[in-house]
Amino acid sequence: MTKTLEFWFDFSSPYAYLAAQKIDDLAARAGRETLWRPFLLGVVFGVTGNGPLTRQPIKGDYTRHDLERMARYMDVDWHMPDKFPIPTQHAARAFYWIDKDDPDTAKKFARVAFNAYFARNIDISPAQTVLNIAAGCNVDPDVLGPALQTPEAKQALRDRTDEAMKKGVCGSPFFIVDGEGFWGSDRMWMVKKWMQQGGW
Amino acid sequence: MTKTLEFWFDFSSPYAYLAAQKIDDLAARAGRETLWRPFLLGVVFGVTGNGPLTRQPIKGDYTRHDLERMARYMDVDWHMPDKFPIPTQHAARAFYWIDKDDPDTAKKFARVAFNAYFARNIDISPAQTVLNIAAGCNVDPDVLGPALQTPEAKQALRDRTDEAMKKGVCGSPFFIVDGEGFWGSDRMWMVKKWMQQGGW
Repeated sequence: MTKTLEFWFDFSSPYAYLAAQKIDDLAARAGRETLWRPFLLGVVFGVTGNGPLTRQPIKGDYTRHDLERMARYMDVDWHMPDKFPIPTQHAARAFYWIDKDDPDTAKKFARVAFNAYFARNIDISPAQTVLNIAAGCNVDPDVLGPALQTPEAKQALRDRTDEAMKKGVCGSPFFIVDGEGFWGSDRMWMVKKWMQQGGW
Repeated sequence: MTKTLEFWFDFSSPYAYLAAQKIDDLAARAGRETLWRPFLLGVVFGVTGNGPLTRQPIKGDYTRHDLERMARYMDVDWHMPDKFPIPTQHAARAFYWIDKDDPDTAKKFARVAFNAYFARNIDISPAQTVLNIAAGCNVDPDVLGPALQTPEAKQALRDRTDEAMKKGVCGSPFFIVDGEGFWGSDRMWMVKKWMQQGGW
């Protein structure tokens, strides 16, 4: 069985957007499969007492500058969204609904959604926008639309967010390899080392 | 004139302790001189609304594990202090008092103080402990002791903490090269790249 690299993120997390650009390559080079795992960071913030970095004095300015600098370094398209942060439950529910049968399409959907929000300044919080993005990934919006409103779809996301907290996911992005957690896009070098060496 | 690498830190910051192990080497390899700059992180927390990582649910557990793992990776002595965090104004005032005339001894004092706290579990908050550490660095405690109580020594630290916030220092450790700020020990790779390339 292929070993995995779990990639936990919120669709409204800019550092997760950056990490999403290279997480699959990182895993592939280590012979691992990624499991993309969106969750609701706001729920975790409710427990940890944190909030969006951009809203904090001094740190907000630093973060905005750092994101722009990091995107330039990574040569990734970047535009700080006018509306930030946003609710992401529709995007995350859609992800898991697609993921049930087709993880590859779910990842594609997630990449397009991230890109729409953080490169093209499109607010991806409305259900209709999520459906449009899904349609672009060959997911039938007439099926997905009603599915997102079901108790099952809502529960699936709640379960994943609970799972995140049980696993110690304290922010976004958060990576887990062989039970070992790493928080932050700037820890991907450590994830790589851990996969190569099996720990230290 | 030699270019500098500013190293801003609080003596109670574990990630700053880790960064302190290699900041001078990092600077030296880039032909730069370090300016060690202790400040009072609690004052900055008062503005940003943050608090010690270890006190936050989920994130506290992560941080304790991460510190132990990072120290092992770096092969640095590590013992999470029983008393954490601690007030560090005596250590920081002592640093600047020594630094006025002898920056090298001030750095040595800072390294010994960090090591006492994070490797040997010694509470370095009492003035007497700070004086003992200074004495071990050939600083006369009978001169330093009274000096730490002067309005000048107190003001010097307040001024540095104000300077930190004006420069955008939002946490500890924080590095500044050529006006560009980098927050966190896990950004030292970026500081290195920035010094090598002069930005990107």
